[in-house]
Amino acid sequence: MRTIFRPFLLLFALCACLASAPLMLAEQERPRSESSEKKKQPANNAEAEIRAVLDAQVAAWNAGKLEEFMEGYWRSPELTFFSGGRKLSGWDATLERYRKNYQAEGREMGKLAFSDLDVLPLGADAAVVRGRWQLTLSDGRKPGGLYTLVFRRLDRKWRITHDHTSSDQ
Amino acid sequence: MRTIFRPFLLLFALCACLASAPLMLAEQERPRSESSEKKKQPANNAEAEIRAVLDAQVAAWNAGKLEEFMEGYWRSPELTFFSGGRKLSGWDATLERYRKNYQAEGREMGKLAFSDLDVLPLGADAAVVRGRWQLTLSDGRKPGGLYTLVFRRLDRKWRITHDHTSSDQ
Repeated sequence: MRTIFRPFLLLFALCACLASAPLMLAEQERPRSESSEKKKQPANNAEAEIRAVLDAQVAAWNAGKLEEFMEGYWRSPELTFFSGGRKLSGWDATLERYRKNYQAEGREMGKLAFSDLDVLPLGADAAVVRGRWQLTLSDGRKPGGLYTLVFRRLDRKWRITHDHTSSDQ
Repeated sequence: MRTIFRPFLLLFALCACLASAPLMLAEQERPRSESSEKKKQPANNAEAEIRAVLDAQVAAWNAGKLEEFMEGYWRSPELTFFSGGRKLSGWDATLERYRKNYQAEGREMGKLAFSDLDVLPLGADAAVVRGRWQLTLSDGRKPGGLYTLVFRRLDRKWRITHDHTSSDQ
């Protein structure tokens, strides 16, 4: 009996291995498919999350907090900002432009408002936002224009990776 | 011995089941990951196909064929065209703008060139293109500027669904 018992023990061990290995594989697969489902979730929530980023930008601007406003942008040298035929590259250059245009001597930030927002999700981690911006300055002037923003979801946060802004002519 | 042999047979059958079921699961998973790789395929070709659309636009423009140039745009009322703070909606309105600006009395189409192209695929059926446009007119003037285009793959064709253009100031 011993001679028969041993091969069965070996077979059992082999079966146990065969049974557990693919199960481990299957469990490794599961988080992947779950995460792809989770990825769909933000796509559905994308619009709400993106609108929250823009709302936070408006609130920061109107509190005079330019660096907080800049948190809506991708803090990367790859951020691009197009305006009036001029191309800027990088978060630092974009902040510098805002500083020169709105915080320099004789300039003011005014009160910012966004309107006509259209959020178009493209894939799970990207979206395009079209909208209108308007400033109300202390002398009553109301400069404004249109923007196209490319939003990407990076490190679970939606950030503007490209901004094309044009002013009313 | 028979009494011991039978439970081992049962165990072996159970192990065989456990071993094969997850393997089947794992095989079912495989085509899914393969198809997601296939999905990447058009995204990889996206840049070439999109550049071909833009090349065709430039060729059509320089042949004075405005309607052919317009084939690069989504023939839909949902097409949007932003320029100088002005928002146009629809393919017809966009064609009308081009006619007024470049084919009206005293206007000319000139010679068009695109440069600094950057094609960013976003998902399998969408991409953003950043670039520079320049016209060379018969009097030597060279108006130009930047554009941001949202491309979408619709009915297997890449088309511009949104164009934000700004002119050098």
